Amino acid sequence: MSSNSPSKLDRVLSEITGVDSAWQAEAERRQRSLTKPPGSLGRLEEIANRCAAIQRTLLPRVSRPTLLLFAGDHGVCQEAVSPYPQSVTAQMVVNFQNGGAAVNALARANQIDLRVVDVGVANDLPSLSNVVCRRVRSGTKNFCVEPAMTPNEAEMAVSVGIEEAEAACESGAWILGIGEMGIGNTTVAAALTAALTGLPAARVSGRGTGADDNCLARKVQAIDRAISLHEKHLTSPLSLLARLGGLEIAAMCGACLAGAARRRPVVIDGFIATAAAALAVEFDRRVAGYLIAGHHSPEPGQALLWERLGQRPLLDLQMRLGEGTGAVLAMTLVRSAVAAFTEMATFESAGVSDRESAPETAHP
Amino acid sequence: MSSNSPSKLDRVLSEITGVDSAWQAEAERRQRSLTKPPGSLGRLEEIANRCAAIQRTLLPRVSRPTLLLFAGDHGVCQEAVSPYPQSVTAQMVVNFQNGGAAVNALARANQIDLRVVDVGVANDLPSLSNVVCRRVRSGTKNFCVEPAMTPNEAEMAVSVGIEEAEAACESGAWILGIGEMGIGNTTVAAALTAALTGLPAARVSGRGTGADDNCLARKVQAIDRAISLHEKHLTSPLSLLARLGGLEIAAMCGACLAGAARRRPVVIDGFIATAAAALAVEFDRRVAGYLIAGHHSPEPGQALLWERLGQRPLLDLQMRLGEGTGAVLAMTLVRSAVAAFTEMATFESAGVSDRESAPETAHP
Repeated sequence: MSSNSPSKLDRVLSEITGVDSAWQAEAERRQRSLTKPPGSLGRLEEIANRCAAIQRTLLPRVSRPTLLLFAGDHGVCQEAVSPYPQSVTAQMVVNFQNGGAAVNALARANQIDLRVVDVGVANDLPSLSNVVCRRVRSGTKNFCVEPAMTPNEAEMAVSVGIEEAEAACESGAWILGIGEMGIGNTTVAAALTAALTGLPAARVSGRGTGADDNCLARKVQAIDRAISLHEKHLTSPLSLLARLGGLEIAAMCGACLAGAARRRPVVIDGFIATAAAALAVEFDRRVAGYLIAGHHSPEPGQALLWERLGQRPLLDLQMRLGEGTGAVLAMTLVRSAVAAFTEMATFESAGVSDRESAPETAHP
Repeated sequence: MSSNSPSKLDRVLSEITGVDSAWQAEAERRQRSLTKPPGSLGRLEEIANRCAAIQRTLLPRVSRPTLLLFAGDHGVCQEAVSPYPQSVTAQMVVNFQNGGAAVNALARANQIDLRVVDVGVANDLPSLSNVVCRRVRSGTKNFCVEPAMTPNEAEMAVSVGIEEAEAACESGAWILGIGEMGIGNTTVAAALTAALTGLPAARVSGRGTGADDNCLARKVQAIDRAISLHEKHLTSPLSLLARLGGLEIAAMCGACLAGAARRRPVVIDGFIATAAAALAVEFDRRVAGYLIAGHHSPEPGQALLWERLGQRPLLDLQMRLGEGTGAVLAMTLVRSAVAAFTEMATFESAGVSDRESAPETAHP
């Protein structure tokens, strides 16, 4: 990056504005005019109102919903923190290419565009027509012994996320989702959560894709070592990403920033995506208004992060897969919420009596 | 109904079989072969496995999902149990006709077929091209002073539900949903719940579409009066429907029975639909295996009914509208669950390492 022109990250940060509370109030007013008891669509109303405030219109658009799925590997796998070998990350990217993963099936079933981006897979991959190769480096280093990456690499990975989100918007995406693939990355998300919240590793660590007791103990130990090693250097969101982060997490963080700058709702998948979203909010508090919490994670760190952000996920289907599977399902709910908001008749237009009307059968 | 030939209800009851546990086990086996950590799709796995067991195949179909929306009115509205006038039922049927209600928007957004059936609206309706007129009578009587309808009327309304569900199946629906419209029907569903569970009216009654304290007190009182008046006669599911039920509730009950007989999953909306589903299970316990609990209701009676049936709703979006809005959203989850189950690659076919593989980075 040239030191004379502002970086892509700085440019996007300068473009972020807050969600507009006047449009939020307008949207709430419209909700009350629609042919339903007030508030009876529950969280669908909340979500539609936020989309209206984000896009500053009573006709928010949800066309071409796009899930950005970033893949990256993690040096901390050397600490045996996952029951799966690291090579599974690359194997799953090939599976995404071939349409055989859970997220492929869910995206197809719900007409969500899927864009898979290799931002830092460790193993070699063949050239894949359905996977965007934006590899910054082949996996991070082991954060138990050294920084996961350099600040420059972290910023490059953030920029990949920014560019991919902007490309999706250019292609007509009015709503974005983020998801990830990376063996070992619940450990990385837990380390970031520990750093963000100041809580001990044991409080924020869970079993990920199926860690047994020993594996979980290794996760907690790895995070404790990493925090001790790096804590003096965790002075900015970028240094957090560089020291304790992952390439796919940095990219998801960038996608959240770009989504906010472009005023698109960004639907967040599970724990790892939530850690990336929380880091985006560290860059600029106002980003929180653009995020939609998609799916509850059984990882204990996620609820702590959403609590900080004042949100609660839309779905709890006991999924713990990642890949953006929870975000895809939540994006269909956002689409439904906006459809009800923009397409429903009003009491006036439909000639339906509101509760304020004198009841025909008033009690004496 | 002729006394010589078996009634439609008897015929359908004779066709119901239990969900096949051998197919359930087959489905669980297939889930373990798919490229994801075991169990990581959570409730999507549970739902797909049930669809496989219901349809007795590892390729369950979810094509042409159809929501059956039954409308009916309630004599108990004379007790001022709703903040809305009874005429709203007919007005909302016209709104469904014109595509302006919440359920229209949600069904369109999710490609769910919607079939609206007038099985007992009180007010006159014009001829409506998108509404099936199967009116058994124009609203029920006030169950505080007399039976809501005759046993023959109840059976006719059940038969309407059977016929509409069978017609949907003939049109290619492999999954059904049920929803309703009827001012005052949370009172009716609460009365049925009180009768089914033996619990006092106050335990099973909620605020419906927005009852204030006085209105809620009138609901509880109306239910107590009705239970006292009819309790000696509540000797069968049909007598429950006739004495305390509603025409749209009887029709939804029939749709559950026909769905079970045709081996289709039936997705249940909110409290009122759940009361109808619980009555269908009173006709034959095995029907429970075909039901999928769609959306949590804030009405306290619903959780009690699902507890009896050993299920928990898929969604809790704090919706309290009815119309089948919760069922529509849950049907999209069922479609997603089946898509993942039928379309995902296996570890073997995709060349992805399962956790049993020796980790490359095994800890010493």
